[in-house]
Parts: sequence; C-alpha cells; structure tokens
Amino acid sequence: MNIAFIGFGKVAFYLSKLIDGENINIITSAENRSDNTVELINKSDVEVYDTFKEAVEISDITVSLNSPSSALKVAHKYKDYCSGIYLDLNNISPETSIKISQLYDNFVDGAIIGKIDSLNPILYLAGEKAGDLLFLNDFLKVNIISNNIGDASKLKLLRSTYTKSLSALLIECTNLARKYCLDEEFFDILSLTEGDDFKEKSLSRINNTLNASKRKKDELEEIISYFDDDLIMVKAAHEKLSRL
Amino acid sequence: MNIAFIGFGKVAFYLSKLIDGENINIITSAENRSDNTVELINKSDVEVYDTFKEAVEISDITVSLNSPSSALKVAHKYKDYCSGIYLDLNNISPETSIKISQLYDNFVDGAIIGKIDSLNPILYLAGEKAGDLLFLNDFLKVNIISNNIGDASKLKLLRSTYTKSLSALLIECTNLARKYCLDEEFFDILSLTEGDDFKEKSLSRINNTLNASKRKKDELEEIISYFDDDLIMVKAAHEKLSRL
Repeated sequence: MNIAFIGFGKVAFYLSKLIDGENINIITSAENRSDNTVELINKSDVEVYDTFKEAVEISDITVSLNSPSSALKVAHKYKDYCSGIYLDLNNISPETSIKISQLYDNFVDGAIIGKIDSLNPILYLAGEKAGDLLFLNDFLKVNIISNNIGDASKLKLLRSTYTKSLSALLIECTNLARKYCLDEEFFDILSLTEGDDFKEKSLSRINNTLNASKRKKDELEEIISYFDDDLIMVKAAHEKLSRL
Repeated sequence: MNIAFIGFGKVAFYLSKLIDGENINIITSAENRSDNTVELINKSDVEVYDTFKEAVEISDITVSLNSPSSALKVAHKYKDYCSGIYLDLNNISPETSIKISQLYDNFVDGAIIGKIDSLNPILYLAGEKAGDLLFLNDFLKVNIISNNIGDASKLKLLRSTYTKSLSALLIECTNLARKYCLDEEFFDILSLTEGDDFKEKSLSRINNTLNASKRKKDELEEIISYFDDDLIMVKAAHEKLSRL
C-alpha cells in the first residue's frame, strides 16, 4: 500500500517513523519545499518522487500535512489525482473540513492529539470513510469520533477552549500569588488536589503561552467566532492574552 | 495540655479525632449550641464544660471553629479569658485576621486545606507564634507560611481564585462540548494530558459548583474586592456563576 504525504514537516517526519509496516510504502516529494523539509526527508526512510502529483496518483491514501492556511489550496491542487482516501491533518477549522470534503469522494477529517515527538499521539478521525483507516491502529492509537466531517476539527477546538483558557487562568493566579510572595505556597497547596506535578505542568503551560501569546490569542479568536456561543471564560482568556 | 475548641462542627469533630495525644485534652462546651453540634460532641471523646469561658480560661491553646461571619464576634467575646495561643480556623478574610490579631497577644492565623473528613488535611499557619503549634505535626501535616498575620487567609483566597475559576471554565467547556455531542470525546482527549481521573474530577467539580453556585459566586465577589487587581479570569468566573 502506498501512502502519499503532501508536506513533510515535523508531524510528517514522526508519523513516517510510526507507520512502519512491511507492506506500507510512504512516499512524498521535495517539490518546492524548504531546506528544512528536505533535511527531514533525507533523515527519514520515505520514498521521494519528483512531484506531489505523481506521489498522490500512485497512492491509496493521501495525507495532507501542511498548515491550516494552505490546506484548502493544497486540497484543490491534488483533487484530480487522488483516487483513494484523502486525509487532512492540518488543524483546519470545521468549515474548511466541509469545504475540502466537497472536493473529494473519500475525505477523512483528522486531528493528531498528544506529543508526536514522543511517538505517542492519538489520531482522531471523522467521516464515513474513517473506518478504512483503522488498520493504522497497528502503528498508533486511532479513535473514530463519528461519521460527521468536521467533528475531528471541532473536537480539537473544544480541547483548545479548555487548555488555552486554563493557561490564561494560571497566568493570572500565579501573577497574583507572586505579588503577595505566596507563589511557592500557591503551588504547594494546589498540588494537594491537582497532583504532584501541578507546579511543573503549570509553569510549562505558562511559558508555552507566554512564548506564543499572539498565536494563541488568534486561535482563541477563531474559536470564539466559530462557536458563536456565550463563552464568558474563553472571551476572558482572549482578553487576558491580548493584554500580555 | 488543654486545647479549647470554640464551636464543634464537622471540622472540629474530625480535628478532635486527629489530635489524639496522651497529654492532650480537647475541651469544648455545648453552651447555646444546636442539636447537630451537641450530637457531634456526644459522638467524640472531648471534655465538655458548661461554658466556653471556662474552657478557654483553663486552656493553653484556643481554637475558634465557627464561621467567617461570626469569627470576629467570637474573638471579642473570649479575648479576656485566653492567656495562651488563639488560633482562628474560620476561613476569614485577611482583614479580619488582622483585626483579631489586635485583640490577642498570641494570635495565629490558620487555614485547613484538603479533605478533613478523610482525615488527611494540611494545617497552614501564619504569625509569629505559629512555631509554637508545630507539635501538632505529630497528628496532622502542619505548614508554617510566614510571620505575617493574614497570609494563611490570603493563601486560601489565592487557592480559591484558581479552583473556583477552573470550575467555571469546566462548566463552560463541557456545556459547549455537550451542545455538539462531543462531551465524551472532550473528556477522553483531555485525559491524555490532564490525567486518567480528569473526567471524574471535572464532573465532581462541576456538580459541587452547581450545587452551591450562589455561595461560590459570593466568595468570588469577596476575592475580587479583596485583591483589587485586574483579575480578568476571576471576574469572568464570577459572571459565569452569576448567570447559572
């Protein structure tokens, strides 16, 4: 079986390591790709074609591994060459999932959760053809959510409403505790109920958020506009990140 | 050594079970107390005096175990009878701690954290005389925060800023996930990073908050007014609980 990877960044690199079956051939192309990408391709065992078109054409499954902003363009570009399943793993919005699904007969909406670089992620899938990808369970954990295109993206957004707002809350509370010179005690007291790793985890969340506050603020903006619900806490998190 | 408990509710009942040393005599009174309190006294091994005044007078340590709203009145009432340490465990505000400290020579500001009924709480203490209570370490975990009266109360408020806002966030996120029929998946996906007990803990937090939303909203109001800081997330949590 051939699996074409359109794009070969970090996620693709680790996925190609995970999906390592005897009868599985992962192929990609270095066409118009950056030096970093070419380096990742060289470090892996995948087969390299001159163009993505060729790779897609001879594949049973095509996986789009690009960026949220280029996902729709990529989907348009290869729709006439893909006869098998087209799986999008670009962190796209539920709306974009639906748009892409209209271009392909066998579209699957996917999301990778967990740390890919520790080679222990979970692949969440949605769509009527998701069941055809269950064989991937031999290589990584695969969960099928539903037949509804967009549900994998939606689930990822729902997860973000929680994790990003939690980070904003942690920033607020630890700053307040620090102001009163009680931050060490704040972590100690909470580790009683939140677990021994509360401090370590919280500081890592805070740092990750502070280091990418603009991007996380933009992601919260997308979430707020997508769900169109009365999200008091999520809106406050957006406000908190805007003021950092 | 005699320890007087002014008040004998659930916390006092479990504390009297924990502090069970050979040379320690816990005493209290049923003076003007409710039937429930009298029942708890009868179920315990404490010594019962006719009045709290007598109990306080012969004690080395007096522990006030009433309610935040009655703490100051109780402190006034017994200030002329207490010659030893006066420990307040009423969940009072930092301001009330300071007021009470002005009535007693040997005041200690305390907070009990963790589940008292599982007999595994931690006693946080602040004040110059807190060190005199370190012998309680034989019976339960005792942590001294600082010499500053009010720090135990402050720490409890800081803890609440986090836990109460987190509950509000969980209510918002799970309601949103439920709206899209993805609540099971929401818990599953988050348990990957938040721990296997994420769902159970979250539902318990949500239920506790929904069952006492008015009280928790009032507590958040106190926190917001006490800290007088730009608490965007905590204010949003207050708003969230107000709308439940």
